[in-house]
Amino acid sequence: MAKKIDKGVFLTDTQPAIISSAAIVGGKEGKGPLGKHFDKIVDDSHFGEKTWEKAESKFQLEAVSSAIRKAGITKEELDVIFSGDLINQCIGSAYGLRDLEIPFLGLYGACSTMAEGLLMSAIYTDSGTAERAVAVTSSHFSTAERQFRYPLSYGGQRTPTSQWTCTGSGAAVIDRNGKGPVIIGGCIGKITDMGINDINNMGAAMAPAAAETIRRYLSATGNKPSDYDYIITGDLGITGSKLLIELLNNEGIDINTQHRDCGAMIFDPKTQDTHCGGSGCGCSASVLCGYFLPMLKKGDIKRILFAATGALMSPMACQQGETIPSISHLVDIKGGI
Amino acid sequence: MAKKIDKGVFLTDTQPAIISSAAIVGGKEGKGPLGKHFDKIVDDSHFGEKTWEKAESKFQLEAVSSAIRKAGITKEELDVIFSGDLINQCIGSAYGLRDLEIPFLGLYGACSTMAEGLLMSAIYTDSGTAERAVAVTSSHFSTAERQFRYPLSYGGQRTPTSQWTCTGSGAAVIDRNGKGPVIIGGCIGKITDMGINDINNMGAAMAPAAAETIRRYLSATGNKPSDYDYIITGDLGITGSKLLIELLNNEGIDINTQHRDCGAMIFDPKTQDTHCGGSGCGCSASVLCGYFLPMLKKGDIKRILFAATGALMSPMACQQGETIPSISHLVDIKGGI
Repeated sequence: MAKKIDKGVFLTDTQPAIISSAAIVGGKEGKGPLGKHFDKIVDDSHFGEKTWEKAESKFQLEAVSSAIRKAGITKEELDVIFSGDLINQCIGSAYGLRDLEIPFLGLYGACSTMAEGLLMSAIYTDSGTAERAVAVTSSHFSTAERQFRYPLSYGGQRTPTSQWTCTGSGAAVIDRNGKGPVIIGGCIGKITDMGINDINNMGAAMAPAAAETIRRYLSATGNKPSDYDYIITGDLGITGSKLLIELLNNEGIDINTQHRDCGAMIFDPKTQDTHCGGSGCGCSASVLCGYFLPMLKKGDIKRILFAATGALMSPMACQQGETIPSISHLVDIKGGI
Repeated sequence: MAKKIDKGVFLTDTQPAIISSAAIVGGKEGKGPLGKHFDKIVDDSHFGEKTWEKAESKFQLEAVSSAIRKAGITKEELDVIFSGDLINQCIGSAYGLRDLEIPFLGLYGACSTMAEGLLMSAIYTDSGTAERAVAVTSSHFSTAERQFRYPLSYGGQRTPTSQWTCTGSGAAVIDRNGKGPVIIGGCIGKITDMGINDINNMGAAMAPAAAETIRRYLSATGNKPSDYDYIITGDLGITGSKLLIELLNNEGIDINTQHRDCGAMIFDPKTQDTHCGGSGCGCSASVLCGYFLPMLKKGDIKRILFAATGALMSPMACQQGETIPSISHLVDIKGGI
């Protein structure tokens, strides 16, 4: 039985394993510093489809199919799939996965979705509800830009704190009895809103959520930052990462050595004109599934905290004068045998 | 430990109890046949707020607050809250619940969200990850109409098969060790798409999903329709309900006696001009929380299947020529001691 050690903080009993993972990204992401780590790079932003939304669905389906293949199983051996994305009504997920005939639970955690899905997969497999689960999410620069900001053809100027929504998808297969990096525990995030209302400064809006979740997990478990090779956030970008370090420092927690941010890693800010870095559900998902999980599997590193962050606003909420509520979910992953 | 009895079908071990529930609805829902069963009726569609979106958030917060009050607990005693809604990026939930400081897991299941949240709550409490969980969802006629169909002031003509999005919210508190109706098991839905592309005929799009889920649960458990007082669907409406009965009849399953549909029950089609009935996440949530759960609690009925249904399309997907994928999640609830 899972052990609740604080509100929203739990340790798994059986330590379910991430038996495989896959990451499929777009051309720009492929040209970034992590390019060689991804399973597939798709240069065509339409992925052979008529619309970007259909392309995003295809990214998600490809990531899941690839993860299943790498696990050496068939889709019939999966009990449940957890998925969500940024497009209104999460159609990237619904249309991408509809033909799989795998029991489906839709999530909405914005860019925190990969951590939310892993957390769910851990609990469902650990509890015996499922033997094998998949966590997947995606984002696409062009579906996100036109939905959250401006039509692409408008050519809007990007502010210095803005981030670049990644095109890509990451998927992981979790098995109750499998081999691979294991999910030891997790922390369910609380909605945090510090009054930021600049939708071009998501890093600042989301840093307090990441700080709250990381602080709560470390405090409940008694773990120290030095217990981890990396403490990974999803998509705070360069500005948000600095804020996170500062916020935790103020509480006496120094993660400066261990901290890495998927958004700050995926692009080269000097040559790729991405300002504060990458963002979007697909950013932390592809960096985790393509870069960090394989390192854990190979034994290059021993343990990570993965805390993806999501901004829960909508364009309409911002037009109505609202600030940006954020959330960060976390999973504690240890290298497997 | 929960027992997986088929892909996506499980039985709980500890049988977590629904210790309280609350339903808050709008004026039109309050004037319907179930009006006297709801905890609160709010005639002002703005609920004292400046926008309908903010009003929907307030409905959700009020439903949760009322359910917590009725359970005789404080919000500090809750470990996790599961929520989602129909508004883009689920802002009804994020803004409604942001001040509660309860660990939050966002869901997107369209109108199946109440069943998805109950299923999640059952698994999280049963597994020991949480002691107490809340499942909540909402919808609002005016936020949904302008987002999914037309601006209200346009005065679009409604087709005979269309349904009326309910204004309201339902919330339930689930306790691992509490007293009340217990969640025995559940079934995670599969995405089903039979090629329906008429967004004014959601009932037809969703009936196959409900049929698939109900059939799979009954088949895996060996239960018969007559084991239940009611087999309840959420929001198939009048047309969709007929289709569901027919689809299951074709497979030798007769639920005609036990079947009730929340969408078909909440309005009086003769006097309320609602065509095929109600819809929206708040419809099945408020009917379950205001009408069926209290009956189970009082002992008037002994056991129900609750299968809420959701249509996973978006206006953009339909504009891009897509059909409507649907899903239905199910929970099996037995009267408590």
